[in-house]
This record gives sequence, structure tokens and C-alpha cells, in this order.
Amino acid sequence: MSYTEKLDAALQRLHDEGRYRTFIDIERSRGNFPHATWRRPDGSERPVTVWCGNDYLGMGQHPVVINAMHEAIDATGAGSGGTRNISGTTVYHKALEAELADLHGKEAALLFTSAYIANDATLSTLPKLFPGLIIYSDALNHASMIEGVRRNGGAKRIFRHNDVAHLRELLAADDPAAPKLIAFESVYSMDGDFGPIEAICDLADEFGALTYIDEVHAVGMYGPRGAGVAERDRLMHRIDIINGTLAKAYGVMGGYIAASWKMCDAIRSYAPGFIFTTSLPPAVAAGAAASVRHLKTDGALRARHQTQAKILKTRLKGMGLPIIDHGSHIVPVIVGDPVHTKKLSDMLLEDHGIYVQPINFPTVPRGTERLRFTPSPVHGPLEMDALVKALDTLWAHCALNRAELSA
Amino acid sequence: MSYTEKLDAALQRLHDEGRYRTFIDIERSRGNFPHATWRRPDGSERPVTVWCGNDYLGMGQHPVVINAMHEAIDATGAGSGGTRNISGTTVYHKALEAELADLHGKEAALLFTSAYIANDATLSTLPKLFPGLIIYSDALNHASMIEGVRRNGGAKRIFRHNDVAHLRELLAADDPAAPKLIAFESVYSMDGDFGPIEAICDLADEFGALTYIDEVHAVGMYGPRGAGVAERDRLMHRIDIINGTLAKAYGVMGGYIAASWKMCDAIRSYAPGFIFTTSLPPAVAAGAAASVRHLKTDGALRARHQTQAKILKTRLKGMGLPIIDHGSHIVPVIVGDPVHTKKLSDMLLEDHGIYVQPINFPTVPRGTERLRFTPSPVHGPLEMDALVKALDTLWAHCALNRAELSA
Repeated sequence: MSYTEKLDAALQRLHDEGRYRTFIDIERSRGNFPHATWRRPDGSERPVTVWCGNDYLGMGQHPVVINAMHEAIDATGAGSGGTRNISGTTVYHKALEAELADLHGKEAALLFTSAYIANDATLSTLPKLFPGLIIYSDALNHASMIEGVRRNGGAKRIFRHNDVAHLRELLAADDPAAPKLIAFESVYSMDGDFGPIEAICDLADEFGALTYIDEVHAVGMYGPRGAGVAERDRLMHRIDIINGTLAKAYGVMGGYIAASWKMCDAIRSYAPGFIFTTSLPPAVAAGAAASVRHLKTDGALRARHQTQAKILKTRLKGMGLPIIDHGSHIVPVIVGDPVHTKKLSDMLLEDHGIYVQPINFPTVPRGTERLRFTPSPVHGPLEMDALVKALDTLWAHCALNRAELSA
Repeated sequence: MSYTEKLDAALQRLHDEGRYRTFIDIERSRGNFPHATWRRPDGSERPVTVWCGNDYLGMGQHPVVINAMHEAIDATGAGSGGTRNISGTTVYHKALEAELADLHGKEAALLFTSAYIANDATLSTLPKLFPGLIIYSDALNHASMIEGVRRNGGAKRIFRHNDVAHLRELLAADDPAAPKLIAFESVYSMDGDFGPIEAICDLADEFGALTYIDEVHAVGMYGPRGAGVAERDRLMHRIDIINGTLAKAYGVMGGYIAASWKMCDAIRSYAPGFIFTTSLPPAVAAGAAASVRHLKTDGALRARHQTQAKILKTRLKGMGLPIIDHGSHIVPVIVGDPVHTKKLSDMLLEDHGIYVQPINFPTVPRGTERLRFTPSPVHGPLEMDALVKALDTLWAHCALNRAELSA
């Protein structure tokens, strides 16, 4: 039994498929984002513009966030020193949970160390609370939801992406008395398309199901106070459990659910992924709370974000590039081959100082490998010109098809 | 189908068993730890001494950690802005991984957002790398290891706690050609006993198994450079995968594994819990790296920690209290009933300003409910006197048995 040979084989599979990941070492400079420094493996450096980050609004360098973090470190120190139950609950955690409950119009919110673990822990704990629970899960749900749904071997049904007719079929086929939950996302981050929230809520009402929405690519960015697409569409009150992140538009780290007081209390009490882990550092909670609070009123920043996305999409479409446009802030350009995608990414980085990570399987289905651009309010006209020109040049150089794959 | 009724029932079970958890809101004041402020639900405050935190060495308020965090926030901002693969790898993450690989004498280390997810993600990914893998898991392993071992439904064998004869039986009963992994801890945090590292390594050699050790309650605190019990016992080179935390003795947040370069590369490439989550904030990585670096040389702090634990145990034993003593830094006092444990904890907090959380099922087996004290180098003689006197008074007041349950 050679363990090393097995590791070699596992790694070789990735190389063979052209999807071995090389992490790019990026050092952001506070106040200069999206500009950053790329440090090559040999130690040499090159200035780059980051076009693939999830700090969608630039809040990771906003003074209200930075100051809140500094203040909390000075007041209370570095880590929390314990799990939430054993000395790790502080006024910072409670204030952030209150801020998030208010954001979503729910009775309560529950913090996790990430939205990944929030999805995984919550979805895997719900079958303990509702014995016999059947979870109906969108086929393109995020890996963390898939892991949570799978974990305890409870009953699950996968409905075709955004296909409410299929969802209805599946719901109608099951025992009407069985507890049910429909799990889906508001913005699917790889295509940037929206989930049919209202239609799903209607089905949930009809079949007596709970609703669970992942708004990680929407919180901070949609709705009058940044609570997400469900807020924008006035559907938030119809969702039982809302999952969000503090690590993308809010610019810090951590994840949460917002729900009824009893639901949060039960998840808090039964989810190992919540119970047995050190709570977020107070400074992280303080920074996130400041960011959530700020974005409740800064609708102008949200508007600029959407405008930037519209401009970039219009320009790329004008050049005939195969972009997917569902009207969200995410701009995917389909390449359709892992090796080509990697090559384009490498050329953009090395030759043009543009950093956009290739996205390949298993993050997206094979054959839909892509570059995924995330314009933000801090990407100015100069940065956008440079990107558009670089893509035009590379598409010509590589003789790539234009538009044939665009939606 | 009433979901609310089911939630009520789930919560009522906890109340009925006296193990419904109420989080105590504790605000630490940098520089004054273990002194802190308890904020009651009604908003009133009381000064308390924290006796149950996992900031075992007080590094959460150490200037090298605090300064490193401030500097990183000023240099680079709040969050990392992405997953490790998509714009979330920075010089801070790479420096911390290098520091940890060096600490453990391994080729590489891999950061996770917590040691919980490091255990869960690594143990659940290993069966993908080694098809047919059988995992031999100590019966008292931490919840995160149990979750990881369970997750993908791979083959598992549970050996009785620290029972190497039982482990040998289980290993001998399986196909000699099957890939195998033995997963255990170096310090079991609830009893404070040590795992039989050398004997397990011997069995691993004999049966061709990999070894996986969780050193979360040991890193920073044992060994000449703080790499843990395996370092202290000169066995570190015989462990294939070492799991550690940055949230306890190192005082910040995050978790990791240290292993061969190929092992880390494969976990990095195949573990959803690593791939699909935002990386730690650069400031958290910077603070943790400063802490690890500092504790590589501050053996005096480690020695004071052990001395404090010895003094407390000696004094509690002198009073005849039922403590468990396996020679580690953890001081459990067995009460054996969830309601009594909670009551003692409440009286210590309210009447004596001593904060020690009751530990009950599922964290420990029913019937072994306890108070678990964590003396540190920053708990001075006055704090210890106050604790010992309070416990003496309460044990008399409550007519609790002395010593009958002590090991």
C-alpha cells in the first residue's frame, strides 16, 4: 500500500484535466483596491488590478469597517477565547446578530465562522429537528448546501435548476404529511442568474414546506437596505431561513442565518458546526456589524455597483464576447475549456496586469469553464478600458469564438 | 404539519434534561484578562474572572499579536475578499502556512477557517484520495473529527478510548491491503488526558496505517517550540497529519493541518470545505503568525502555564474536591448532574464573580457533567485564592460529595 502513489494519482488527474489550481498571491493595499500587488513564486512583483474578488462594494477598505476593527482589538484583544457557549459570546457578537436580525426583518440571527459552515451546519441539523424532513434542493446550489443536505443521509430531492414545474412534481409526489424544506439561492454566483423566489414561496405555501434561501451573493447589494433580492422583491417575510455572508459585499468574514427566534435557538442548540467551534474574533464581528449598518443606508453605493456591471456588460457585448447576462452584478465570460481558460487568465495577469482567476470544474460544470469578472464601484473608467482592450486583443489573438455561447 | 411545535419539542427536551444552554455575555478588556465584564440579560454589569476560556496563555492580548493585527488591517484592509483560489491568497496566508510547517517539521501546512472545519474537511476528503480507506477513530474524539469521519459514509472503526489493545484487534481484523488511518487526539480536552501517541505510531507502522493527530489543546503549550505533545515526546516525525488551532493557545482564530507537501496539495485540491469558503482575514493570519512565532521561543510562558495548573490541582485536591488529574493543564471538577452543575456555575458567577461554564451532554457523557477550569499564566495568586475559597464554600453549602469521583 503506497499512500504516496495514491496522492500522486489524485494530483495527476487534476493536471491531466488542466484543472490543477495554482493560487495567485495577491496583496491588496488598503485604499487602493482594486489595485494590488501580485507576488510571483520567484518573489518578483507586478502591480495588478483585481477583477475577480468578492469584495463587491469595496467595503473591505471602508473607514467605518477598518476603524471598528481597530477599536475592538484595542478594547478587547485578538480572539474571543472560546466557543459561543464557553466564554466566546461577547457584546460584539450579540450586537452583530441584532443588526442582522433587523436587516432581514426576522426575530433572530445566528453567527457562524463562515456562510459555508452556516449552510452545512443548518441544513444538516434541520432533519434532527423535523424527523422525516425531505429537502428539495436546486441542482445548482452551492457546494456548502450540497454538503449540508447530504451529510446526515436524510431524504433529498434535487430539482432542475430554477425549474419550478419540476419542483412542483417532486413536492406533489411526496407524502403531504411529511415535513419539507425547499433550499435555493437568490443569486447563483457562477451564471449570475436569479432564483424564482416568489414562485418557490407559492409552492412552499401550497405544499406546507419551509423555505431556505442562500443570499450570499446578494446581501449588501440588493434591496433598499441591502438585505438581498428577497428584500428587493418584498418577499423576505415569506422566507423561513435566510443565509448570508459577511465576507463578500460586507468585506470582512463570517456567515449567518436569520430566522425565527425558535429556529435560531434550535439550530444554536443542536448543530455541532455551531456548538463546537471558537466564535469569530470580536474585531471581525465589530467590522462586520459596522459594514452591515453602513450599507443599510448607502443605497448610492449599491446603485453605482449595478451601473458598473451594466457598463461592463454592455461593452463586452458590444465586442461580441460570449457573456452571460441575467441582469445581476456578475459578469461571466464563457471560454468552455479548462486549458484555454487558464491560458487566458495567465496572459491577462502577466501581459496586462489584470487578475481574473479561471473558474473550472467542480465550481462550474465541465465545458462551461469561464472567466468571471466582478466590477465594483471602485473599478473606475481607466480600469474598465484596460480590461475591455485586453480582452479584445486576447480574443483576437486566441481566435476564440464570439457570442456563440452567450445566453 | 406544525413546524413550530416540532421546534418547541426539540427545545423542551433540552430544558427537561437541564442542558439548555444560556450564553453568558462576557466582554474582555485588553490587558486585563482574565478579568472581564459580565453583562446580564437586563443590561446590568458585574466584574468577573474568566476561568473557562481557551486563551490558555493569554496570547489574545499579547502586544505582538495585537500589533500584527493592527498593522495588517492598515496595510491591506479588513477581509481577504475571496476564497484561497479566487483572489483570497495573500502573503499573510502564505507566511502563516510556512510558520506552521516549520513549527511541526513538515513540508507544508494548510489553513482553514477553523480547526473544526480542518478536521471535518480533511477526514471527509481522505477517503476520496485513498479509495477503500478505513478510519480507526478514538471513541472520545472531538465532534469535528466524528463529523468528518462520518460524512462520506466511508468505512470506520471506533476503538475504545486510548485502548491500543482494542485498536490492534480492529486493525488485525481488516484486510492488510486496505488503506488505513488512525485518528486520535494528543490531549482530550474534557478529561485532560493524553493519547498514547507512541503506541499508536507503533501500531500504524505494524499495520501500514497513516496517523492523524488532533493537537488543538496542545499546540503552543507543549514541546520545546510549542508544537504540541508529539513534539514534546519526539514523535512528531511519525505523525502523517497534524491538526492544530490558532484560536486557543495562539489566541486568535483559524485552524490548520501540517503534513507532506503532496498531502496538503491533495487536500487543498479536493476538500470542498477548503475550496469553497472565503479565506481568513489577513489581519487574523498576521496575528496568528506573530503568536506562533513568539511561542516558538517563549518556553517560560509555557512553564508558568503548567505551574499554574499544578498549583490549582494541588489546592483543589487538598480540599478533597473530585478533580480529574492526568498531568495536563486542564482541571475538570466532576459534578455528575446537569442541574447541579448549572446551579454551581450560576452561584459562582453571581455570588463570587467567577465565570466557569457548566459542561454537559453532548460535550461530555451524561453523568459526568462538570466544571472545567483553565488556569493560565495570567491568573495570579489572588484570583486562585478567590476560586479555591468559593469552591470550598459552595461544596459545603451544596453538600456535594468530595473526591469520590476523582481519578
